[in-house]
Amino acid sequence: MVSIEARVLEHNDTIAAENRQWFAQHGIRVLNMMSAPGAGKTALLERTLTEMSSTTNLRIITGDVEGDFDAQRLRARGGSVLSLRTEGACHLDASMIRAQLGTFVPPERGTLIIENVGNLVCPAAFDLGEHERVALVSTTEGEDKPAKYPLLFHRADVIVLTKMDLVPHLDWDIDVFERHVRSVNPRARRMNVSARSGEGMREWLAYVMS
Amino acid sequence: MVSIEARVLEHNDTIAAENRQWFAQHGIRVLNMMSAPGAGKTALLERTLTEMSSTTNLRIITGDVEGDFDAQRLRARGGSVLSLRTEGACHLDASMIRAQLGTFVPPERGTLIIENVGNLVCPAAFDLGEHERVALVSTTEGEDKPAKYPLLFHRADVIVLTKMDLVPHLDWDIDVFERHVRSVNPRARRMNVSARSGEGMREWLAYVMS
Repeated sequence: MVSIEARVLEHNDTIAAENRQWFAQHGIRVLNMMSAPGAGKTALLERTLTEMSSTTNLRIITGDVEGDFDAQRLRARGGSVLSLRTEGACHLDASMIRAQLGTFVPPERGTLIIENVGNLVCPAAFDLGEHERVALVSTTEGEDKPAKYPLLFHRADVIVLTKMDLVPHLDWDIDVFERHVRSVNPRARRMNVSARSGEGMREWLAYVMS
Repeated sequence: MVSIEARVLEHNDTIAAENRQWFAQHGIRVLNMMSAPGAGKTALLERTLTEMSSTTNLRIITGDVEGDFDAQRLRARGGSVLSLRTEGACHLDASMIRAQLGTFVPPERGTLIIENVGNLVCPAAFDLGEHERVALVSTTEGEDKPAKYPLLFHRADVIVLTKMDLVPHLDWDIDVFERHVRSVNPRARRMNVSARSGEGMREWLAYVMS
């Protein structure tokens, strides 16, 4: 099985490199957002859409095992959103993104945000052609998640801690969390946000629109 | 890939059936606990160990992608715990459990609790030989998770809602949650618990020890 898996990943990497080249040609910035189910990816994007002055050049792709719950929520906030069903798979792959280039993702300057399937294992191994990987983890998940799922957090360019508004109601130590983060990734940019209270939204929006 | 996956699952099912037979021969009851990362499986088991009158006949196996954080926490509460590393895989499989029969799991009456890898996709497909599947979901993950990850919740015998103590601090509707649960699983037993406040622990303990 290992050699089959290696070949699947190699094939995926080739397509991801082609996607990246296409994005570069057209001046499109691509973020790949990954987290456990329920960490708040969709809630953060809902607030992002509400607070952005213009969403004209923004496209969002959501990866869903089944249904299109996230896409529905984001469309209700005015987003241009496409739901890609993985038919049971635990991650998006580069060929699923390639099929949308030039169609859902127009060949013009802009931003593409990919909300991957909620999963801390599988998405980490599959490059989609993104420029930056954004790993999200919520305060309610406990401090140790980056160390327990090191590949995803190790490869992240940005690590966003969500649900900051719940900290007063948790037995939770941010210093312990930071130690776990830095044990697997000493260089990632760190942000703390709450889509509910608005904490950290200014920094997050500046990052998305940069 | 589909036929390879089908053969992997078929092979797993064969071993799981043998495990189940071994458990039956020795009067061992086996629960397979599955949830997203951070839903609170370990916290619930910590409190379970603290409140049980005797843990002599209880064994716990934790599935970990890396490290043995959960096993350490549970040993600190007096549990007999074995951590099985999946070496990157997103689930335990039946052969990993088989390797522990007669060794870590003694051939005598008792209970085996398997805390699977935190993941709402992969563990659902892999029977381990358990008698009941316990799916956990926390209030902080949002109401829609059972519908977004239907296979795991569809196959669950018991669906445990965790972190009930946080409900007052969330925008969260239990009726919406229940509708999503029943849309994928009309028959599963439902429990609500909080390992922090103790809510629902009596019912949970009675279930574990039944």
